[in-house]
Amino acid sequence: MKVAVIGVGLIGGSFALALKQAKLAAHVVGVGRSAANLKTALERGIIDSAASDPASAARGADLILISTPVAQFAGVLKNLSGSLEARTLVTDGGSTKRDVIAAARKALGRQISQFVPAHPIAGAEKSGAAAASAELFRDRRVVLTPLKENSRQDISRVEAAWSACGARVSRMEAKEHDAVLAAVSHLPHLLAFALVHDVASRKNSAQLFSFAAGGFRDFTRIASSHPEMWRDICVANRDRLLGELSRFSIKLARVRKLLDSPARLEKLFAEARDARDRWIRSS
Amino acid sequence: MKVAVIGVGLIGGSFALALKQAKLAAHVVGVGRSAANLKTALERGIIDSAASDPASAARGADLILISTPVAQFAGVLKNLSGSLEARTLVTDGGSTKRDVIAAARKALGRQISQFVPAHPIAGAEKSGAAAASAELFRDRRVVLTPLKENSRQDISRVEAAWSACGARVSRMEAKEHDAVLAAVSHLPHLLAFALVHDVASRKNSAQLFSFAAGGFRDFTRIASSHPEMWRDICVANRDRLLGELSRFSIKLARVRKLLDSPARLEKLFAEARDARDRWIRSS
Repeated sequence: MKVAVIGVGLIGGSFALALKQAKLAAHVVGVGRSAANLKTALERGIIDSAASDPASAARGADLILISTPVAQFAGVLKNLSGSLEARTLVTDGGSTKRDVIAAARKALGRQISQFVPAHPIAGAEKSGAAAASAELFRDRRVVLTPLKENSRQDISRVEAAWSACGARVSRMEAKEHDAVLAAVSHLPHLLAFALVHDVASRKNSAQLFSFAAGGFRDFTRIASSHPEMWRDICVANRDRLLGELSRFSIKLARVRKLLDSPARLEKLFAEARDARDRWIRSS
Repeated sequence: MKVAVIGVGLIGGSFALALKQAKLAAHVVGVGRSAANLKTALERGIIDSAASDPASAARGADLILISTPVAQFAGVLKNLSGSLEARTLVTDGGSTKRDVIAAARKALGRQISQFVPAHPIAGAEKSGAAAASAELFRDRRVVLTPLKENSRQDISRVEAAWSACGARVSRMEAKEHDAVLAAVSHLPHLLAFALVHDVASRKNSAQLFSFAAGGFRDFTRIASSHPEMWRDICVANRDRLLGELSRFSIKLARVRKLLDSPARLEKLFAEARDARDRWIRSS
């Protein structure tokens, strides 16, 4: 296959490396905003050539991956739309799906059937081509949110590409995907960013950080994630995230009251620990 | 030294192992609520004998460590008070210090000078003697919150014991300690317990956990902590924790509004990431 990767960051770069390792990509062309990052990608053998824009990269491509922050999808897809050959499939690495699909419908028109949306749940707090790895998706989940316009054959082809990266692929409605990820990914990221920002804003922040231990380090690891990428996710999934924020605020108010009821507080802690331990054992 | 450890869990067991490794403890006697745990401690060579209560363990002891959940300190100290020899020093592993000191003053009376409070900041989500390790305190912080009644010599002796465990020992006022730990430890624990409990309480919790990834795993690691220990910490440091909860709720309300201001949201994320990355690099 000739593969085009629009946005050669952690996700895009890892997709290219994994397909090359699986001997599925004969040539990878990359597009990116940062010349330095594209140079790294060329040097690391992630991409074989660089194109100036998505339309140029799309020429002759069998498969295109769009893996930019999600707010850039509209522009990327618009640029692509005139140059998308009939045989080319498009998938993506966006962490939100309703907004990405809406942008694709608008830009691609009747060619929307060629777009099979995907979300590889394999983030890391590192970003850029330098952090890419052929193993990033190994045993990680990739969620496809196929469209009614997609043919079964095209969905299978895109699924096969992600499976070749070592991922466990499943399917979900876009709406359901965005709801699930708001709860277990987007909200925790927002909480971690907020907590670190609050600690860093205080007069005694140096002291606070200096007595923070391993618990704080792990709790806040996701606050070292890519700011622009997470800005876009939070804005794109705003309605679901607001719902999760409201829900969590209510939960916190309840937990606050339990500080007067030690036995019930302990019960809540024990239930949380048991639930988490069951999850860890089963995953 | 003859050392008595009241509460032979992760902290108490690790203290005993570390002092033995440093050749500072010739005999360690342990006291605990769980016969099975004490058996593990004997089998692992963490303790050399078991006593039925703190008073019995105290006889002939050079150093006593109280490392039970903090709500048990009043009972332990009361039991100890009649049997505390004049040469014996007492330190502790409690994660809160104002309540522990108040309990000690009440129980020990004029012998309060023999109690040098300490908090080893070296928790883990594992607990019990089985999880103890001679290396737990290596390069970790231990905060002493000495009392005005402590002699400089006694503070130094207790400091030397913790240093022998490999810890970096510093000193702080108890009030300041509880404020700092509320922000960087107690609040994050409460947030993690609350989030996991909320996810686990939903109808689709199996689905939610199944799509939770590494970010959620790390963010919630501290929700696998010991429920009773954390109940006690939250209740003991209730006033400071309530203050942190209020502060965080205000922060979350602000972040919520920023979902309408993408540029400012990204700025907050970037500032949080930069602050965390600086901390990680320096620690």
